[in-house]
Amino acid sequence: PASKLPALGTTIFTQMSALAQQHNAINLSQGFPDFDGPRYLQQRLAYHVSQGANQYAPMTGAAALREAIADKTAALYGYLPDSNEEITVTAGATEALYAAITALVRPGDEVICFDPSYDSYAPAVTLAGGVMKRQTLQPPAFRVDWQEFHQLLSPRTRLVILNTPHNPSATVWQQSDFAALWQAIADKEIYVLSDEVYEHICFTDEGHHSVLAQPQLRERAIAVSSFGKTFHMTGWKVGYCVAPPALSAEIRKVHQYLTFSVNTPAQLALADMLRAEPQHYRELPAFYRARRDCLVQALSNSRFNILPCTGTYFLLADYSAISDLDDVSFCRWLTEKVGVAAIPLSVFCAESFPHRLIRLCFAKQETTLIAAAERLCQI
Amino acid sequence: PASKLPALGTTIFTQMSALAQQHNAINLSQGFPDFDGPRYLQQRLAYHVSQGANQYAPMTGAAALREAIADKTAALYGYLPDSNEEITVTAGATEALYAAITALVRPGDEVICFDPSYDSYAPAVTLAGGVMKRQTLQPPAFRVDWQEFHQLLSPRTRLVILNTPHNPSATVWQQSDFAALWQAIADKEIYVLSDEVYEHICFTDEGHHSVLAQPQLRERAIAVSSFGKTFHMTGWKVGYCVAPPALSAEIRKVHQYLTFSVNTPAQLALADMLRAEPQHYRELPAFYRARRDCLVQALSNSRFNILPCTGTYFLLADYSAISDLDDVSFCRWLTEKVGVAAIPLSVFCAESFPHRLIRLCFAKQETTLIAAAERLCQI
Ligand SMILES: CSCCC(=O)C(=O)O
Ligand SMILES: CSCCC(=O)C(=O)O
Repeated sequence: PASKLPALGTTIFTQMSALAQQHNAINLSQGFPDFDGPRYLQQRLAYHVSQGANQYAPMTGAAALREAIADKTAALYGYLPDSNEEITVTAGATEALYAAITALVRPGDEVICFDPSYDSYAPAVTLAGGVMKRQTLQPPAFRVDWQEFHQLLSPRTRLVILNTPHNPSATVWQQSDFAALWQAIADKEIYVLSDEVYEHICFTDEGHHSVLAQPQLRERAIAVSSFGKTFHMTGWKVGYCVAPPALSAEIRKVHQYLTFSVNTPAQLALADMLRAEPQHYRELPAFYRARRDCLVQALSNSRFNILPCTGTYFLLADYSAISDLDDVSFCRWLTEKVGVAAIPLSVFCAESFPHRLIRLCFAKQETTLIAAAERLCQI
Repeated sequence: PASKLPALGTTIFTQMSALAQQHNAINLSQGFPDFDGPRYLQQRLAYHVSQGANQYAPMTGAAALREAIADKTAALYGYLPDSNEEITVTAGATEALYAAITALVRPGDEVICFDPSYDSYAPAVTLAGGVMKRQTLQPPAFRVDWQEFHQLLSPRTRLVILNTPHNPSATVWQQSDFAALWQAIADKEIYVLSDEVYEHICFTDEGHHSVLAQPQLRERAIAVSSFGKTFHMTGWKVGYCVAPPALSAEIRKVHQYLTFSVNTPAQLALADMLRAEPQHYRELPAFYRARRDCLVQALSNSRFNILPCTGTYFLLADYSAISDLDDVSFCRWLTEKVGVAAIPLSVFCAESFPHRLIRLCFAKQETTLIAAAERLCQI
């Protein structure tokens, strides 16, 4: 059949993980931990399964989980969403992003995003008939140029997609960014989709700025998060979005025919975990800072130039001193010849991104990080 | 925001289950069992979780599950799909249906379905910019009129959606239906989406006819199934589709940005179950025939006229002798005043469906079925 997504291949994550396996390389490409999540969470899953919580959850999500998410949001961001009207549980953050884009973007609508950007946004916009407008951010700071942003706005602009802490740049939005965004769109009917799946992995003193902590913006914002990164269980696939009632109603219309509902016992186990062990996510910055610092330290004798990392579990490394290869070729070579898999940055950019940057995932045991760094120090 | 699905409300299943709960009615509306699935399956889930199988599964599905599905398909339908190229694991059958429709239907394309039809097909077609063309089937046999079908075909026809065993009519397609379908579309570029989630709940002597058992049709067919109905675990949300490589490639492009991957430990547990306990699904017809016969028997003194049921775990009952209410009003009355929740048939039809039919789910313990029937016998 003629393809509706002709330009699209397999995601870089699937490609690189497969290549890593094929060459027996240490896999610092696709973002997932090589250690396990909390025992308590696992035990709660087994408990709910054994108690017969195995039938359809409510379409909007299990009530216990929506309530726990509402309370967590209030505790962290000073805003208590209505768990019935404003929170929808989805099959990972990926489904939440797809459902929000599908619900809001009409054919011909323009959607602004900041490149490098996570690779699922654009295909969802394309399938909705929307048009991507992109601002490419520059290393090392990857700050939004708000002058330039104004020039991207048009009467067809419908949605702005942001991501903080930002994958793959490992930078975070500041309060002033949210202020500038509000100023730019306040008098227009433009919605904001804020991908915050790394909300609990932020290393700044101020901590994560959520769109939900912005009283004006949140009236037209969809905040998306999930539990995979927070609880080291990327394979459970439970995410959610928080949005005002009218927006949530539209997102749910899509969600109910996209997946209808999400794995019931996993939802109940996560609700228990959020209630019983809030210190888990409160301790996550320190947990991941130690891993970040371990990798940075272990690479200090390498010829890579390491960029600042203020959030996510990714570290950017500039290999200009090592090779002239473009980043895709360099990552292939690195996997095949050096035995370390990483992600090239340019795949997250629609326009040319003539930098020599790779992304290394440090959600790994220290032994893994040190073994990878040893290899990387030899080139 | 202006809605992209303005005509759409909450699914009838969510509405009726909520109404049932509110009025403390016996819930024979939304299709899910009130008994639990196999212990072995539950134990395998707990096992895989405890063994650390908690990170992203491959985008196409866990290899063990895809291989088990391939072998099951060969054993039952005489066709061994390539587990790498032709099988994709999805977040329930709902995601498989949505991904297939999104991948294949372009703006302006026409999609033929047979009403009454499951309520997720049309919204997916609408969001893809397609146009529904419907043939309304008539009780009690709900057979497709193949003369009439030819008149629905046009140069814009892109996809035919069928469902066997059929929810909500509880009828099944015969071999002659598949032959007639092939004859009608053989010389056209038209695809077939076959929803077979009740494949193991078929009461005819011949058994279920799968599109995968049709050598010509399957070259352009997407067969969709899942494990919720088969293993009494509707809340686990693991489904899949089987399609030729070129079609699977397009479906995967959508799937990878819709949900990316499916709950890992649930996939591995289901793979174990399919391997270890094939008699489970082989015994399912007898298991559900007993429940069907129990409900039919218990209703024999009622004023309902019971329609034949040759598949699914639903039974249709005609209430013409009891009430003049339309079916939606009758179901509301039944829930509120009689204490039994059922599903009205007309909600599955775009055109007028002037019958007095309700759908009763018999995936329930015999005590539940008898208690419900006692109430239904009193009106
Ligand atoms: C969904 S697989 C990709 C995981 C991820 O978010 C990343 O590596 O950036
Ligand atoms: C996805 S909830 C509806 C369950 C079902 O398939 C039905 O009741 O028909």
